[in-house]
Amino acid sequence: MKVRVTVMLKEGVLDPQGKAIDHALQTLGFPGVSDVRVGKIIELDVAGTDRAAVTKQAEKMASNLLANMVIEDFSVEVLA
Amino acid sequence: MKVRVTVMLKEGVLDPQGKAIDHALQTLGFPGVSDVRVGKIIELDVAGTDRAAVTKQAEKMASNLLANMVIEDFSVEVLA
Repeated sequence: MKVRVTVMLKEGVLDPQGKAIDHALQTLGFPGVSDVRVGKIIELDVAGTDRAAVTKQAEKMASNLLANMVIEDFSVEVLA
Repeated sequence: MKVRVTVMLKEGVLDPQGKAIDHALQTLGFPGVSDVRVGKIIELDVAGTDRAAVTKQAEKMASNLLANMVIEDFSVEVLA
């Protein structure tokens, strides 16, 4: 099944990448931009047909490898 | 308005990050994983109340800065 894992920094964690993008956008002439946050998307095929089992498997992958649980949150979506 | 820009590599473009994650997951004991693709999410506040205008603004930001149009596709979602 196709799964999408979305990983974002936790609220309150400084996002230097977001700050850099914010500054670059202002410089490029996009004044009305604020609160830029950057995250990751990992899409993968997970073997299995049971949605709950695939979701659980993906959550284990996310907490073991895909997300740094100290500073990041993740969410799992089974696409198809 | 809160906007989410999702940037993924185009189909057919080699994804070394995805390959590395695929390999790491196999090593960690997740055999049933394949076709791992990695992308970016950029969430930002864009000044404005008109959904169409905000979407257009975000699309310009994406094509000018947030996505490398040679190898990446992007999609824009106005969240709230």
